[in-house]
Amino acid sequence: MKREFAVIGLGRFGGSVCRQLSKQGMSVLAIDKTEAKITEFRNIASHAVIADASDERVLKELGLRNIDHVIVGIGDDIQSSILITLMLKELGIKRITAKAQNDYHEKVLLKIGADQVIHPERDMGKKIAHSILSNNIIEHIELSDEYSIVEIKASKKMVGKTLVDLDIRAKYGCNVVAIKSGLTKEINVSPSGDDPISIEDILVIIGADADIYKLEKKFNES
Amino acid sequence: MKREFAVIGLGRFGGSVCRQLSKQGMSVLAIDKTEAKITEFRNIASHAVIADASDERVLKELGLRNIDHVIVGIGDDIQSSILITLMLKELGIKRITAKAQNDYHEKVLLKIGADQVIHPERDMGKKIAHSILSNNIIEHIELSDEYSIVEIKASKKMVGKTLVDLDIRAKYGCNVVAIKSGLTKEINVSPSGDDPISIEDILVIIGADADIYKLEKKFNES
Ligand SMILES: Nc1ncnc2c1ncn2[C@@H]1O[C@H](COP(=O)(O)OP(=O)(O)OP(=O)(O)O)[C@@H](O)[C@H]1O
Ligand SMILES: Nc1ncnc2c1ncn2[C@@H]1O[C@H](COP(=O)(O)OP(=O)(O)OP(=O)(O)O)[C@@H](O)[C@H]1O
Ligand SMILES: [Ca+2]
Ligand SMILES: [Ca+2]
Ligand SMILES: [Ca+2]
Ligand SMILES: [Ca+2]
Repeated sequence: MKREFAVIGLGRFGGSVCRQLSKQGMSVLAIDKTEAKITEFRNIASHAVIADASDERVLKELGLRNIDHVIVGIGDDIQSSILITLMLKELGIKRITAKAQNDYHEKVLLKIGADQVIHPERDMGKKIAHSILSNNIIEHIELSDEYSIVEIKASKKMVGKTLVDLDIRAKYGCNVVAIKSGLTKEINVSPSGDDPISIEDILVIIGADADIYKLEKKFNES
Repeated sequence: MKREFAVIGLGRFGGSVCRQLSKQGMSVLAIDKTEAKITEFRNIASHAVIADASDERVLKELGLRNIDHVIVGIGDDIQSSILITLMLKELGIKRITAKAQNDYHEKVLLKIGADQVIHPERDMGKKIAHSILSNNIIEHIELSDEYSIVEIKASKKMVGKTLVDLDIRAKYGCNVVAIKSGLTKEINVSPSGDDPISIEDILVIIGADADIYKLEKKFNES
């Protein structure tokens, strides 16, 4: 059976979720209190309804009972976001994802029953800061507050050396989990210790942030 | 020489960039027009100044000439974001990263000289939609068109088994590069083959998309 979704609040975040789910062929009920948003999403979502979802009577009339997963995309109006999440929970919605403004907002959302809480701006801010700090790190994925996976462009100091030569594991406590060939663009997820690194290769490395920074600094040009 | 940064607009995105750069020991000048933000960032950034950066005279008085990279975190007020980016460019700032509200905003920012334009809400929305569509995959990073790194929640079929038992490498051609403990929230980047997987553990797996999909289906509940 096809899963049914609803997105409440079609801002930049909620709107993007709605677009993406619709693009994948999902049935999405799009809800916003402003007419302009509903006009925008009428031809994108399966259904688009103008409604103030913080009004209990209105929310009940939306007939969300058969929806499997509701995404609450409201951010600025913390009170509405919390109230709506609470009412969705009481309506028996199986899965609720909500956007949070800050840590306090997140705590409340989780306590009243949200299954997943998202901080789009904060998390993207972290990502951008990481990429700003390192010229060679082209992708950065936070695994936790302390651990990350990064993609690092092979620097001049690495080219021609093998993973055994570089001894990254012993020296920096990081693991090279894959190498993307600059030449063939292919990815080797079991990189051999004996193959020399070529110019334009990209190393995918997992480790503690502090260790990754140390490594990146060490091999960085200039 | 240490690079110097400025962040204009300390909202959720700009604030997160400012925090992260400061945490890494960078010199950051934090600018916002509201006093509350400046109070919040006084002890985080190297300097924090209340200023309306869209006022040319005010912006010039901030003495940004020695700043290497300015991040414009203003989103809602598109006009200010554009005006400020333009003035920064005229001041000779070497690198400007700006946050955009929509595609039109992005185009203008690039045209007037922004080096990098970010859409935090839109991009995180895409990411979340992706993860919503596959039940157990909570994080998905594209390494190439064919290869990805994913975070997969341990399913009931995995719990109690070891990596040796599951034999993921031989059976699916994927590598488990880390395990995030559900209990301690710690990450083990050199997971042993003999430790049993616990409920709530998260496996970080690298491999071809097709192989990851096969694995995810195989271990999925129901
Ligand atoms: N009670 C409500 N019922 C329905 N829609 C609502 C309600 N409150 C807010 N919205 C809608 O939610 C959308 C996003 O809300 P808001 O602007 O407060 O969040 P935001 O965090 O700034 O969003 P983003 O950063 O994702 O653009 C807006 O389009 C707004 O009209
Ligand atoms: N002209 C300006 N000069 C200095 N600061 C400004 C100016 N205009 C806006 N700001 C500040 O920028 C911050 C973020 O702006 P705004 O709320 O418009 O963007 P946003 O996209 O909603 O932010 P976010 O989603 O990242 O929280 C606010 O703290 C605001 O006070
Ligand atoms: Ca808003
Ligand atoms: Ca926002
Ligand atoms: Ca705002
Ligand atoms: Ca994550």
